[in-house]
Amino acid sequence: MASHQLPAETLHYCWDNSIPPRLEIEAGDTVFFETQDASDGFVKPGITIEKYVTRKAKGHPLTGPVFIKGAKPGDIVELEILNIKTGGYGWTGFRPGVGLLPNDFKESSFHIWDLKESRATGSWAEFVEGIKIPLDPFCGVMGLALAEPGEFSTTPPRAVGGNMDIRQLTVGSKVWLPVQVEGALFSIGDMHAAQGDGEVCVTAIETGGEVAVRFNLRQDKSIKEPWFWTPAAGRSELGAKGYFATTSHSPDLFYASQQAVRYMIEHLVETYHLSAEQAYILCSVAVELKISQIVDGPNFTVSAFMPNAIFPNT
Amino acid sequence: MASHQLPAETLHYCWDNSIPPRLEIEAGDTVFFETQDASDGFVKPGITIEKYVTRKAKGHPLTGPVFIKGAKPGDIVELEILNIKTGGYGWTGFRPGVGLLPNDFKESSFHIWDLKESRATGSWAEFVEGIKIPLDPFCGVMGLALAEPGEFSTTPPRAVGGNMDIRQLTVGSKVWLPVQVEGALFSIGDMHAAQGDGEVCVTAIETGGEVAVRFNLRQDKSIKEPWFWTPAAGRSELGAKGYFATTSHSPDLFYASQQAVRYMIEHLVETYHLSAEQAYILCSVAVELKISQIVDGPNFTVSAFMPNAIFPNT
Repeated sequence: MASHQLPAETLHYCWDNSIPPRLEIEAGDTVFFETQDASDGFVKPGITIEKYVTRKAKGHPLTGPVFIKGAKPGDIVELEILNIKTGGYGWTGFRPGVGLLPNDFKESSFHIWDLKESRATGSWAEFVEGIKIPLDPFCGVMGLALAEPGEFSTTPPRAVGGNMDIRQLTVGSKVWLPVQVEGALFSIGDMHAAQGDGEVCVTAIETGGEVAVRFNLRQDKSIKEPWFWTPAAGRSELGAKGYFATTSHSPDLFYASQQAVRYMIEHLVETYHLSAEQAYILCSVAVELKISQIVDGPNFTVSAFMPNAIFPNT
Repeated sequence: MASHQLPAETLHYCWDNSIPPRLEIEAGDTVFFETQDASDGFVKPGITIEKYVTRKAKGHPLTGPVFIKGAKPGDIVELEILNIKTGGYGWTGFRPGVGLLPNDFKESSFHIWDLKESRATGSWAEFVEGIKIPLDPFCGVMGLALAEPGEFSTTPPRAVGGNMDIRQLTVGSKVWLPVQVEGALFSIGDMHAAQGDGEVCVTAIETGGEVAVRFNLRQDKSIKEPWFWTPAAGRSELGAKGYFATTSHSPDLFYASQQAVRYMIEHLVETYHLSAEQAYILCSVAVELKISQIVDGPNFTVSAFMPNAIFPNT
């Protein structure tokens, strides 16, 4: 039951099972990871929009890999998320051509969040006067190496996990990942101080930070894709004042999601006098995309829920 | 501000703007609707599986239409859901060929729920020993007539609402529907005592009952598809014990939803010794399908969340 430290050094920017492990641990050990934000430190307080748009994405900076002794293909690595602390700032932004609405915006936009006073679950970060977001940090990327040799982009999540961006994988959660290679080769990064279900503009409140994970090994069963347990209590105050929601009905769940978010942006611009870019950013960190029904074909229903609690003054 | 009663008589089974209104009201009036269950009384306590499979779906039985004086195309009808009381029993079932997993089951299955002691939000209904579902009734179908003439199936929801099956449209909610015809022509039905996000097996806890709705008219703006506000507090106890969740990652949100539900069924069968059919039915009334991320292409992430609170003995 040893403890280990893994600082945010010698990061890797793709999945590749030939990357040498930085650390070997026993099942039951805990690792304290330091993670770099998704922009690898490029986006930070004081950055101008002129500089922001020049960012080249070379993949999420990941801390790892960690070799878990005894892990073999077909096993399950169980992560227990013990503690998370964000960095002192965060950012949310987008550029044209990405996200759920790649063609709706002609200009890039970003927001820098001050997290100095609010680096853990239970704190709030202000967006603009009258709008604040409850933090519930988690790591967007947690995954294992693929069996297939070669380099793989960190962008899509896969059966072994990776960039799942599941906002409920917060402190107190337990995550099962299916092992494909000897030692499992776990890496982590892409910390988010808060995110909605959907992460619609393509970024959450992106931040670096520290995360403590205990590793267990399950050899009694196999799974095909990640399973998890979550206390889901971190942002329970979100629901306390109810929700405003938009809906869209279409045979295409992706299109219905786009339309529901477009209606939400329309509502936010009208009601809170935000720019469309601000509204899109706010959707990415706070809107919860739900599949209300997926059985009443030809039209399925996607709803975009915005928690009223983020508007405490209204 | 008059009150009106509309019993479950002279029901209609399709959307058709030529169906004569059963009631004319003023904006501000309240209507107490009686609704028939989705099977039009066919599925009830004591029914055998032999009879269940012979059910012919002729459309949801709808109570209405209600003509709202002054409503014209481009306006918004605002519904305030004032009160809901379910019938004394409910049912959930499926037949092969329908639902999110149309090819996974070769046999039909159904469950009858005893709701005699539990006809409103805050009550629980037992599924099997050790598993019970908190009720939070709403009407699956609430909609207006389409501008287009002719008969339209009640199955798919459309821009004017209809079979939206949005489980948060509970007591205390306010729903905006876009008007396409003079008088709006509102109808309601398909009461559900409880449902998950997704309604994956194709039915919820289907029941008849009574629902009180106040009608307002908004003529200061237009919307393209329904918007709503919800207190979302009815089943807040659901989250109190956290969630177990399965995930799937795919370019196809529909397929990812199918896989996540298949993994959930696998987990329920293993953990609670349910049949696969029982597990599928339980998913339909309790699982919450979330779009965790819709921006990390080519793979998007759908998560199926099962609230631990429905297993009070475990």
